[in-house]
Amino acid sequence: MPRARQGGLFAVHVLRGQAQVHFMPSALTGVIFTVALFTAGWQYGLYGLVGTAIGTGTAQLLGVDRSRVSAGLEGFNACLVAVGFAVFLGPGHPSTMVLAAGGCAVVTVVTAAATTLLRGWGLPALTLPFCLMASAMTIAAPGFERVWHGGPATAGLSRAAEGTVALAVDDVARAFFANIAQIFLMPQWYVGLILLVGIFAASRTAGAMACVGSAVGVVTAWALGAPTARIVDGTMGYNAVLVAMALCGVLLAADRWSLGFAVVGAAAATVLGPALNALFAPAGGHSFTWPFVLTTLVFVASVPALPRLHRTGPPAVRPLTEPVGSGVVLGA
Amino acid sequence: MPRARQGGLFAVHVLRGQAQVHFMPSALTGVIFTVALFTAGWQYGLYGLVGTAIGTGTAQLLGVDRSRVSAGLEGFNACLVAVGFAVFLGPGHPSTMVLAAGGCAVVTVVTAAATTLLRGWGLPALTLPFCLMASAMTIAAPGFERVWHGGPATAGLSRAAEGTVALAVDDVARAFFANIAQIFLMPQWYVGLILLVGIFAASRTAGAMACVGSAVGVVTAWALGAPTARIVDGTMGYNAVLVAMALCGVLLAADRWSLGFAVVGAAAATVLGPALNALFAPAGGHSFTWPFVLTTLVFVASVPALPRLHRTGPPAVRPLTEPVGSGVVLGA
Amino acid sequence: MPRARQGGLFAVHVLRGQAQVHFMPSALTGVIFTVALFTAGWQYGLYGLVGTAIGTGTAQLLGVDRSRVSAGLEGFNACLVAVGFAVFLGPGHPSTMVLAAGGCAVVTVVTAAATTLLRGWGLPALTLPFCLMASAMTIAAPGFERVWHGGPATAGLSRAAEGTVALAVDDVARAFFANIAQIFLMPQWYVGLILLVGIFAASRTAGAMACVGSAVGVVTAWALGAPTARIVDGTMGYNAVLVAMALCGVLLAADRWSLGFAVVGAAAATVLGPALNALFAPAGGHSFTWPFVLTTLVFVASVPALPRLHRTGPPAVRPLTEPVGSGVVLGA
Repeated sequence: MPRARQGGLFAVHVLRGQAQVHFMPSALTGVIFTVALFTAGWQYGLYGLVGTAIGTGTAQLLGVDRSRVSAGLEGFNACLVAVGFAVFLGPGHPSTMVLAAGGCAVVTVVTAAATTLLRGWGLPALTLPFCLMASAMTIAAPGFERVWHGGPATAGLSRAAEGTVALAVDDVARAFFANIAQIFLMPQWYVGLILLVGIFAASRTAGAMACVGSAVGVVTAWALGAPTARIVDGTMGYNAVLVAMALCGVLLAADRWSLGFAVVGAAAATVLGPALNALFAPAGGHSFTWPFVLTTLVFVASVPALPRLHRTGPPAVRPLTEPVGSGVVLGA
Repeated sequence: MPRARQGGLFAVHVLRGQAQVHFMPSALTGVIFTVALFTAGWQYGLYGLVGTAIGTGTAQLLGVDRSRVSAGLEGFNACLVAVGFAVFLGPGHPSTMVLAAGGCAVVTVVTAAATTLLRGWGLPALTLPFCLMASAMTIAAPGFERVWHGGPATAGLSRAAEGTVALAVDDVARAFFANIAQIFLMPQWYVGLILLVGIFAASRTAGAMACVGSAVGVVTAWALGAPTARIVDGTMGYNAVLVAMALCGVLLAADRWSLGFAVVGAAAATVLGPALNALFAPAGGHSFTWPFVLTTLVFVASVPALPRLHRTGPPAVRPLTEPVGSGVVLGA
Repeated sequence: MPRARQGGLFAVHVLRGQAQVHFMPSALTGVIFTVALFTAGWQYGLYGLVGTAIGTGTAQLLGVDRSRVSAGLEGFNACLVAVGFAVFLGPGHPSTMVLAAGGCAVVTVVTAAATTLLRGWGLPALTLPFCLMASAMTIAAPGFERVWHGGPATAGLSRAAEGTVALAVDDVARAFFANIAQIFLMPQWYVGLILLVGIFAASRTAGAMACVGSAVGVVTAWALGAPTARIVDGTMGYNAVLVAMALCGVLLAADRWSLGFAVVGAAAATVLGPALNALFAPAGGHSFTWPFVLTTLVFVASVPALPRLHRTGPPAVRPLTEPVGSGVVLGA
């Protein structure tokens, strides 16, 4: 195969890696997601894109199964690692760049390990490798003088966290979209809107479930009395979005049982969020997408004992010439 | 089958669910346990009974294997979740009732997951699902304004915690029975006494091992210098009771090797208790029956490598018309 | 077999147990390691030797597979438990002696459990049993009046921790050897030097990888800006030593791919160290060899998905008459 063609294919794998952050193995969705991330900040866009490329490239170098590489499954954790390091260590420091590059390479090894360890139960690795890497790095960072420059950039997680006392209509709208943006660790509602367009471009079911999950997240957080500012900036609801998508359509066959399952799971993940934040807080850590990972693994692991629910078939790998697909192949 | 008969059977399953908190698949024991819990406080009794019913009903609705439901294996974690929420969030608040009901439904999913994940090693889920749910809820609760009403009710865990300087004879007696009561999160010695009667009603071996475990818990805690108040209210020794029962008779065949194993395990769980309390404390969490779960899983997992010890056979499910049985079928 | 012969064999098994702390199944190496530990302090030497004997004896009593006992695989975790208890609870207290003896017996059960649980993935238990026991004990200890005598002896971990401002040549040399000594929780560079001689006596590859790991640990810690005092006393780099040895020669076949893997793993473990210290600190815990255990398990678990890397064959058990061997049989 000519070198140019391979380069072209590699770009497609990277774009699918971007799209897999929201479970979609679609290069078109990857393009839209990349636009969204650059809209949030060019530095984050660059970190995400280069991170996905490093992760995908490392997987190729180490000989990971081609079907995983081409579906983008070796890119999305690296994307999140790079963006996460940029947000928490500051994107402008050379130390952050070096560590992010190293983290994107190592997360490929962690992904391989997680995939192997979970395979016996038919469970996917989801964003577990990202959570492990990002937790280790953010907790370790203050202990290293040349790494730590005083905590997360204000451009990051807390930007939209100005306190409000009641949940107005535009607050709800902002929260609804911010939930989707926070999966990339970004708080801007319009970033979430662009991401949602990208999800719908790949799959109508996935887009609908992202909306359901976001709504469940907002309602649960509001009903239990979570701080308004945290609802509005999306930090209360982003796990619900991912859980709802995973449990109805992505990992479980979409029907009314899995819809109910997804709603319950999304609410559970919304409660689990502050629990994990409190658990990590004394050590200086964050919950990242741990609530999504743990809730989804538990709910999916329960399926063999619950005859009402059904796993989706073995992940179909889209042919390389057909980048847009409604099929979803996360973490097979 | 006529509807009345089904309702009757459901009640038997619920009573067995109550009894399974102490490993006994006996409806008679379930009746005695229910009496004990109402003696501790009518609200706790009601929470426990309704919780077991919700858990058992959810399992039926989701199509869980009937032998598990009829043995009460789908009820005991829900019972503990409901009582735990009542103790830590206050039984009188409507928010607690809604959350407890939700928790009892979700713990069925967690039980199904834990059972599936542990099956490969032949390990039972024990109270792991309860520990996960209760830990998540108690750690998350202070972050939700409509959930948190200022910490556990004084009626709960700390009632008997008035400090004493030396361990008098009646302290030892109170501690001995309180250890058994604390498994239902209650500190009253007479509740423990009623529970012990219920255990003996189902199995003499189980009753004897509950006594052995409680004694080992008191002696170990006293010998190492634990605070007297915590020994007397049973918070130092309840894990030892469960570990001793599990390791000699319930999960391992009762002989002199497993008796020694149970004594060592009970002592180890007594040391592990304060460790897990210290680990959860910075986040505002509690150790619940984590020390029992972790110690028992480790000791039972070691059996295939230790030829002196033997697992009990596959759990025999009692016929539905024979509610009282000495056989024990926890978490198969 | 005459009793004297058996006693002699038991001594060989104990010496191999000492040697297995650094993966070596060699009685000669065990003798050199024992000398090193006595050089660090006669009390630590005695704790280590008696601990290994108790662990090995308990395993024999419980009927653990003879090939594991004779290879020393039932001794090294007990050795570390005994030394760890001595360092953190003070070697002179009778309470420490009783608890250490109990800990060495219980760690045999934990080892059996860890071996059984990890066998399905072909993963060894490494020092996971020691980490579990030592973490539980050190976190629980302050809650027990007769156990806690005011924290680790000054002779222990912190001896060499006098602060220095820059990393001089002799600092680097001290750090290089202290990294090897800290695996036995000792900070003295000359103890590390003796241990290194012992490793080379068993295997040149293992000795070389210990040097590579120690160098990677020093360089990584320095490059990221770790405190000089912690680099010099070996607490930043001891995990890197073990990871490098495990990933190139011990668990993975030694070639240039596994050499690169080992270097990356050693650097990752050096970053993970402060993360786990921060995670345990609020509860009063320590990271022990958790960073080594977690990094090595993840990297080895990834191998089935990474065709460039290869596991070593099934661990060859050396004949009992041939105590010195370059083959390495840790935690099969």
